[in-house]
Amino acid sequence: MAHPPSPISPPLKDDLDIVIPTIRNLDFLEMWRPFFQAYHLIIVQDGDPTKTIRVPDGFDYELYNRNDVNRVLGPKASCISFKDSACRCFGFLVSKKKYIFTIDDDCFVAKDPSGKEINALEQQIKNLLTPSTPFFFNTLYDPYREGADFVRGYPFSFREGAPTAISHGLWLNIPDYDAPTQLVKPLERNTRYVDAVMTIPKGTLFPMCGMNLGFDRELIGPAMYFGLMGDGQPIGRYDDMWAGWCAKVICDHLSLGVKTGLPYIWHSKASNPFVNLKKEYKGIYWQEEIIPFFQSVVLPKECTTVQKCYLELSKQVKEKLSSVDPYFQKLADAMVTWIEVWDELNSPAQAAAAAAAPSTTTPVKKDAPSPKPK
Amino acid sequence: MAHPPSPISPPLKDDLDIVIPTIRNLDFLEMWRPFFQAYHLIIVQDGDPTKTIRVPDGFDYELYNRNDVNRVLGPKASCISFKDSACRCFGFLVSKKKYIFTIDDDCFVAKDPSGKEINALEQQIKNLLTPSTPFFFNTLYDPYREGADFVRGYPFSFREGAPTAISHGLWLNIPDYDAPTQLVKPLERNTRYVDAVMTIPKGTLFPMCGMNLGFDRELIGPAMYFGLMGDGQPIGRYDDMWAGWCAKVICDHLSLGVKTGLPYIWHSKASNPFVNLKKEYKGIYWQEEIIPFFQSVVLPKECTTVQKCYLELSKQVKEKLSSVDPYFQKLADAMVTWIEVWDELNSPAQAAAAAAAPSTTTPVKKDAPSPKPK
Repeated sequence: MAHPPSPISPPLKDDLDIVIPTIRNLDFLEMWRPFFQAYHLIIVQDGDPTKTIRVPDGFDYELYNRNDVNRVLGPKASCISFKDSACRCFGFLVSKKKYIFTIDDDCFVAKDPSGKEINALEQQIKNLLTPSTPFFFNTLYDPYREGADFVRGYPFSFREGAPTAISHGLWLNIPDYDAPTQLVKPLERNTRYVDAVMTIPKGTLFPMCGMNLGFDRELIGPAMYFGLMGDGQPIGRYDDMWAGWCAKVICDHLSLGVKTGLPYIWHSKASNPFVNLKKEYKGIYWQEEIIPFFQSVVLPKECTTVQKCYLELSKQVKEKLSSVDPYFQKLADAMVTWIEVWDELNSPAQAAAAAAAPSTTTPVKKDAPSPKPK
Repeated sequence: MAHPPSPISPPLKDDLDIVIPTIRNLDFLEMWRPFFQAYHLIIVQDGDPTKTIRVPDGFDYELYNRNDVNRVLGPKASCISFKDSACRCFGFLVSKKKYIFTIDDDCFVAKDPSGKEINALEQQIKNLLTPSTPFFFNTLYDPYREGADFVRGYPFSFREGAPTAISHGLWLNIPDYDAPTQLVKPLERNTRYVDAVMTIPKGTLFPMCGMNLGFDRELIGPAMYFGLMGDGQPIGRYDDMWAGWCAKVICDHLSLGVKTGLPYIWHSKASNPFVNLKKEYKGIYWQEEIIPFFQSVVLPKECTTVQKCYLELSKQVKEKLSSVDPYFQKLADAMVTWIEVWDELNSPAQAAAAAAAPSTTTPVKKDAPSPKPK
């Protein structure tokens, strides 16, 4: 007699949180239900905390608004941006899981060229659970993927690869362009499905977009700070870029891998290019000095943890970028505050307490609404 | 009255040579006829020079066997490998064109996912005629391709890119694996069509395969030396790797770009893994020291031409790799000889003479057979 097949548990179900920054009702989750419903969501409500955000029934979530951020972090809440998707990093901070997947609420399920719906989360997990190859380029892309391998001439001693810290997914439909490119090419859509995952080589910076992003919190979490953006700040839309530059430099120093490519999500709506230009314009010229700074950063050998690397980086930011704008002094200070709150909320003792019982210093977890029959 | 459309001349028809190393009749050209027939071929006959190699009618070509190599280069012919596809670089040497496309005779026309035959040469030319982006990674791949651009966060000052020196195409069907991987995965076939062209970032080495390769002779020609391989040498199947390591280091120093990805060719036949293992095994352990050497090579500022870079590299190879095996002394000497013959055959005076009239020191160009009616 054949046994019925035992149901396969969704991968990393108990080890991954999905972090979503939002200002609106999360109807977009309906489309993701088959892929996300088994996972825990951390929703960071941006903007007006008195507004009620509706989450579709049946999802297990905790939701934090600005009042919650202030209550949890006290005066140190100043390091968390307000009125900017940079606030998502608060979700990274309060998560107790090893892995994070973060997605924007205007991102929907994309289809592969065969018409099949893409389970973006599953691919992100695959990317995170297989090694990266930052030390040498493999021309057939991800050598750990089925049907692929290392090509002739790839040194054998590099074939173990490096642990993957970050997986950067891409977008079909609306590409992630800056305001000037949006203005010049308002009708451009990304229709090219490139069936590849690749490692961004050591020593190479990339523009990390936060729209569809996975990472290993234990390996790189403290570097995933999205900076001071939005309300009261001279700049916006550089939150994920800032995190990407810092995290990549630290991954390179610690021999961790960063991948980009699959999975695609369907990015539904171009944001307003005029509003974007206003948010971005300082970043557009600042980055001409920021990039060379990050390209030449050297972290000393003593920096053996992400926290130590990040604090060293904050020091160098203050020293070398303050001449660009006084904003960078403030940002450097916020980087230090971020590490302080990270360590407070993620100390080994804290983690043990959280595992044992609800703690008064950990954020209040709201009960997930139980599914209601329609 | 409508004019009939004027025929479009094949791109770079008078500026590109196709170089083919071979030991057999070139029947494979039949399949390439629609794409190659307008171009000039340089065939380098490997092995027994008394053997006659048949070239399909209607192709314009010159053919060199070992006797020709010896006649053209005299005692310096020692730098050209015998009984190894490394001999292809003799074709690069005697070409008078700006661009080279080189392909192996077991490579056929591949099809894209829509079933359309891929004009590999046309794509190679596209790759060479558009800039590369070695200084920063673009997550949507080649930003110069239709439907793509630089993504948000890509510094504007880098968007001009760098001149492209090398375009490395890929292979469907038989992947370019080393002997151990061939032995372990005898049935693996590459069926994944990745619709992308990308720049290999500055500072990153890659395994360059000579099977399907385009380059700009004026920008990087003197670095495309395929070393001492095959007959009388302790190593084979590292010819293209050697050229790739040297050329990449020099491209990085001179701010030139190297691309990989499209086009695909159909690689028809896996070579014998046991024979390959015999040729490769020294390379497999030598490369563990060669790669760190190339990863740490620094070329001084005074090296402002490819020739100067290459001679400096030969010096460093002698100094730093001779301890690996005395072979590297011989190779370093051959690198110097290569530059000598390159300069002899490619001096500005030489080029002018070649353009004006047949010269006694340039290789004898055989008349292309005229197409015969069947």
